[in-house]
Amino acid sequence: MSRTELETELKRITEAVNSKLEEIARVPDVPEKSVYEAMRYSLLAGGKRLRPVLTAAAAVMTGGDFDDAVTAGCALECVHTYSLIHDDLPCMDDDDLRRGKPTCHKVFPENIALLAGDGLLTKAFEIISAPDSFKTLSAETVNKLALCLSRAAGCGGMIGGQVIDLESENMENISAERLTLMHRKKTGAMIEAAALMGALIGGITDENSGEYKAISDYAMNLGLAFQIKDDILDVVGDENVLGKPVGSDEQQGKNTFVTLLGISGAEERLKKCTADAIGAIEIFGEKGAFLRELARKLVSRDN
Amino acid sequence: MSRTELETELKRITEAVNSKLEEIARVPDVPEKSVYEAMRYSLLAGGKRLRPVLTAAAAVMTGGDFDDAVTAGCALECVHTYSLIHDDLPCMDDDDLRRGKPTCHKVFPENIALLAGDGLLTKAFEIISAPDSFKTLSAETVNKLALCLSRAAGCGGMIGGQVIDLESENMENISAERLTLMHRKKTGAMIEAAALMGALIGGITDENSGEYKAISDYAMNLGLAFQIKDDILDVVGDENVLGKPVGSDEQQGKNTFVTLLGISGAEERLKKCTADAIGAIEIFGEKGAFLRELARKLVSRDN
Repeated sequence: MSRTELETELKRITEAVNSKLEEIARVPDVPEKSVYEAMRYSLLAGGKRLRPVLTAAAAVMTGGDFDDAVTAGCALECVHTYSLIHDDLPCMDDDDLRRGKPTCHKVFPENIALLAGDGLLTKAFEIISAPDSFKTLSAETVNKLALCLSRAAGCGGMIGGQVIDLESENMENISAERLTLMHRKKTGAMIEAAALMGALIGGITDENSGEYKAISDYAMNLGLAFQIKDDILDVVGDENVLGKPVGSDEQQGKNTFVTLLGISGAEERLKKCTADAIGAIEIFGEKGAFLRELARKLVSRDN
Repeated sequence: MSRTELETELKRITEAVNSKLEEIARVPDVPEKSVYEAMRYSLLAGGKRLRPVLTAAAAVMTGGDFDDAVTAGCALECVHTYSLIHDDLPCMDDDDLRRGKPTCHKVFPENIALLAGDGLLTKAFEIISAPDSFKTLSAETVNKLALCLSRAAGCGGMIGGQVIDLESENMENISAERLTLMHRKKTGAMIEAAALMGALIGGITDENSGEYKAISDYAMNLGLAFQIKDDILDVVGDENVLGKPVGSDEQQGKNTFVTLLGISGAEERLKKCTADAIGAIEIFGEKGAFLRELARKLVSRDN
């Protein structure tokens, strides 16, 4: 697959996702509309839509329905967005800006931002369980989607990773194992769930099958590669392209793959994770071309 | 049903619920265990377990499996507990005490308390969707449980009610309509979901059936009666029995059914809601005895 073909397919998926998110983010005319406005503000604040892209691409690769995958991907994006809102709150990272825009609690009162996060997390499960959400899925598959999402988002996944991250701040000599565990949970679990939910929609529901494991492997390595690239860009990136100041990790005393392995060590690790991701889905042959090219694109990105 | 029989059945249900919650609240030996400890602290901090009691009683009334109802009730209790943790946070009500014990963010760091709330909300949906949670339910019914719970907990229900509550503070001349809408959403939606999830477990899955509507009606009126009684107790209750200072609503300038209707007006409304709740489930005959007696007990409670 050429880079142009990749970009065309990426555009098709993100347009479908953004159009569905626009629908989900509609603000009803009710007394409590402020919380809907806050949800909408954060949900439509942009971003790469990486998780829905993975869901849609994994579904297409495995013969699943595109629209159903977009819907499931939007549920993932609701969970991802809630995690960003809560992560930015004063008692967490206390961030004023995200992607160059004021964070949710800077635009809305802090309590409304908190509730908007809660609302998006709850909305994700309403989307999954609503009877008119999916056209092609059995009730059993829908249950599996909900289970996959709740496990990835919960304390065994993303929330657990955030706790490890919070409790690692200013920790000296953090081990590579702890750093890897933190990222595998904090961002990796949801990235893996995104791909696996696509696989579920494509009918790959047996956790012990080779295809399921291959997709899990791909996503795990992709998630780690994504994080390592982020850490590298924070040191060597271009502020104008990144849209945020370079060197912020070091300033905040954050443990990263670069502080742990050095730039060249981190780049080596990045190459290995990317190669492992690409190798994992060889078994899908030509159908895996988009996901392999996507992994290559993510390594070479500059923002 | 005599008051003694009611108490015996109440004890049976709450013991089963507490034993299941103890299992759910187990703390694994992992690096991120602090968030599990915070979840456990709040989940096992006591309380009436009203929601699981309603689920189990409605399931028993409609011929559903008791254990499955207890499991679904525990998912509701996870959502209820998360809402209390977030409600107590500094940016919300900023409460130091709940039921006479320090609130979650007073015992754990504020960010861990926030994440413990997020974790409990997520856990609720993991409980519902896990394949070994229910013995007697079809995948379709499990989806309906998840939908019922997510709608009641989300912006159309509990969260929406909290927003109306926050935005009504210090509002002068709040209308009876707004106060009723706020309570119907803030606490009523989850109480209604509790009873309806019991009905779903009992096989009453048609939202247009008379039985479904009767149970919905019962719970809606019970929830409102519960709130009115709370408002009355805050004025005329005994501090030693209540376990919290009397008159706190007035001190905080809160709008309540008592400020709106006066004591005797609130008592009249309480009587009407209770009678309506009891009347709604007449159609279940002798099988509805427990839920009817429960409504009578809640009116006459002194804490």
